[in-house]
Amino acid sequence: MTEQSSVLTPFAAVDTPALLLDASALKANLERMAAFFARRHCKLRPHFKSHKCTAIAKLQMQAGAVGITCAKLGEAEVVADAGIRNILIANQIVGPLKIRRLVELCRRADPMVAVDSAENVRMLSEHASAAGVKIGVLVEVDVGMGRCGVVPGQPALDLARLVAASAGLRFEGLQGYEGHCVDLRDETERVAQTRESLKALVQSRRLIEQAGLRVNRVSGGGTGTYTITGDCDGVDEVQAGSYAAMDWWYGDIRPEFKQAMSILTIVISRPRPNLVVIDVGRKGVGAEWGPPRVKNLPGSAVASFGSEEHTMLSIPPDSAIRIGDRLEIIPSHGCTTSNLYAEFIVHENGVVTDKWPIEGRGKLQ
Amino acid sequence: MTEQSSVLTPFAAVDTPALLLDASALKANLERMAAFFARRHCKLRPHFKSHKCTAIAKLQMQAGAVGITCAKLGEAEVVADAGIRNILIANQIVGPLKIRRLVELCRRADPMVAVDSAENVRMLSEHASAAGVKIGVLVEVDVGMGRCGVVPGQPALDLARLVAASAGLRFEGLQGYEGHCVDLRDETERVAQTRESLKALVQSRRLIEQAGLRVNRVSGGGTGTYTITGDCDGVDEVQAGSYAAMDWWYGDIRPEFKQAMSILTIVISRPRPNLVVIDVGRKGVGAEWGPPRVKNLPGSAVASFGSEEHTMLSIPPDSAIRIGDRLEIIPSHGCTTSNLYAEFIVHENGVVTDKWPIEGRGKLQ
Repeated sequence: MTEQSSVLTPFAAVDTPALLLDASALKANLERMAAFFARRHCKLRPHFKSHKCTAIAKLQMQAGAVGITCAKLGEAEVVADAGIRNILIANQIVGPLKIRRLVELCRRADPMVAVDSAENVRMLSEHASAAGVKIGVLVEVDVGMGRCGVVPGQPALDLARLVAASAGLRFEGLQGYEGHCVDLRDETERVAQTRESLKALVQSRRLIEQAGLRVNRVSGGGTGTYTITGDCDGVDEVQAGSYAAMDWWYGDIRPEFKQAMSILTIVISRPRPNLVVIDVGRKGVGAEWGPPRVKNLPGSAVASFGSEEHTMLSIPPDSAIRIGDRLEIIPSHGCTTSNLYAEFIVHENGVVTDKWPIEGRGKLQ
Repeated sequence: MTEQSSVLTPFAAVDTPALLLDASALKANLERMAAFFARRHCKLRPHFKSHKCTAIAKLQMQAGAVGITCAKLGEAEVVADAGIRNILIANQIVGPLKIRRLVELCRRADPMVAVDSAENVRMLSEHASAAGVKIGVLVEVDVGMGRCGVVPGQPALDLARLVAASAGLRFEGLQGYEGHCVDLRDETERVAQTRESLKALVQSRRLIEQAGLRVNRVSGGGTGTYTITGDCDGVDEVQAGSYAAMDWWYGDIRPEFKQAMSILTIVISRPRPNLVVIDVGRKGVGAEWGPPRVKNLPGSAVASFGSEEHTMLSIPPDSAIRIGDRLEIIPSHGCTTSNLYAEFIVHENGVVTDKWPIEGRGKLQ
């Protein structure tokens, strides 16, 4: 055990904390998800918010994705900069400052946005008309999450008609995100609640089609529900994101995907035989679903966060780990973790092969 | 109430979400804290981690601070870039990559670091000796927080002696951070526990002095304890940070400081009469001490986070607030919030006067 240091330090030239990305694990995840959708009507529109990295988005497009999902207009702009045109911004774009940027984006990409109010529809259409562009629009339906979205059924039809009648807009279809289902840990419950949510979404689709409007796409889902949503008649696209780089939370419910993302960290203190302190805390670990897990230190466990810059790990008192040893941790949530780093350190079996900028980091606007 | 929009939108040219800084409130906070320390032996060494902005650090130095506290070497480098030489990095700097950078920093600033192990002391000294520089060192004592630090008393003296005998190091004194006390909401308990913690720290100081070593400084404390730590005989510096920009958590226990930091956000959805959704969530709000509070919308309350990009606010059903209205929220924790933005939008009474880059954002290394 005295040579444990060397076992724990394959990234000697990489300073800590750093966000690592295992290229082989990423490749396996992209291939696995692509294979799932290759045999189906429903297609994959990977969510950029999970990794925020255009190098990964391009690999996802090469693997057969129909387009990219973004959370923010600023993300869509960096995705368009990378040469990807088919972009869904799965949120409401509100206010003149952002709508002007959206109109500009229409000149170099084909963005779609979600809407859930007549006010927003009117303002989008006014700006698009004035600029001579058409913005693709999905009506967002609240399928039970209780966040944004209109009530399923007649309200969805009413808003779809308003979109279709708006000069600057192109009615594309519906969006419904079963966000209250994606993280249900019990699979039976996840399947049952997801199907119930999708029923309301697909019924809204049928109602709109019966009214004579063409529905090009119904988009929803995530890594937690892709097997259910991807097999649902009437759903055309799944917005899964976490499957690519993963985190331990989704790893527990989706063990078919590998942990590609980890955080390299260094032991800065061993104040007691059964405790070490590492050099990353809440400032470098997305942790709203729990503290990180240790990847390569048998017998250890995260004791607690020590504020923004520290995490405390309980270890066996006879552990050979020393100050200066480096180890990897897996965050509970990859989407908030990728927001905290400027780049992924890409590696193959511990050998650094590349650095990929996280262009979507901090794109709050 | 129909003109509520204009009341809520004094920052018409600022896109959302944005991090605002009220210049008058900041000034009042800096002056108030400076006045407290002006009459005392103990001096202020403001913590950079709270705002991460060199414009604020310079104002703190102008207001009488003896130097700046940083959490990370990367923060110390940007503080040195701003022309401030007296910098304490209040954590352990471990590993050859960082120690080499620390040695480089010694050529353009006078950094001090905390140590809590003989291994770290030896490695720091070796690198400093080889480069012909001297690194100032504080021995960190665990005063009850249970994170880093040696046990008070003899272990502190032993490590102090090792530092003093190390060719590349300059023994400066002790650091003890009562992090388990700063956020105790009950003031009586906060005072009692802080005094108990400081007793161990000051006794260690006396022991080291009796052994013939000169103690130039004992540094500790924070915004939650500055009145206690700042009046403790044997403590020379207080590392308060949150007092400058504040957050609601510290506001509740330190009402003498004003809320200078807020987040400007826009209403993107009103799915039900009693609910609005705003365009910032966990990706833009430091929230480990609870969800944000709404600053300027009477009768409203944060219902819950809606993941990374949304926060849901419950409102009175007859509220006149509309989609596109803008409002300000106060985060529970300013230190993690400032890490999520590239700049502060500085304003006086709602009129934007400046933009200050947050150079310390993302300085994880």
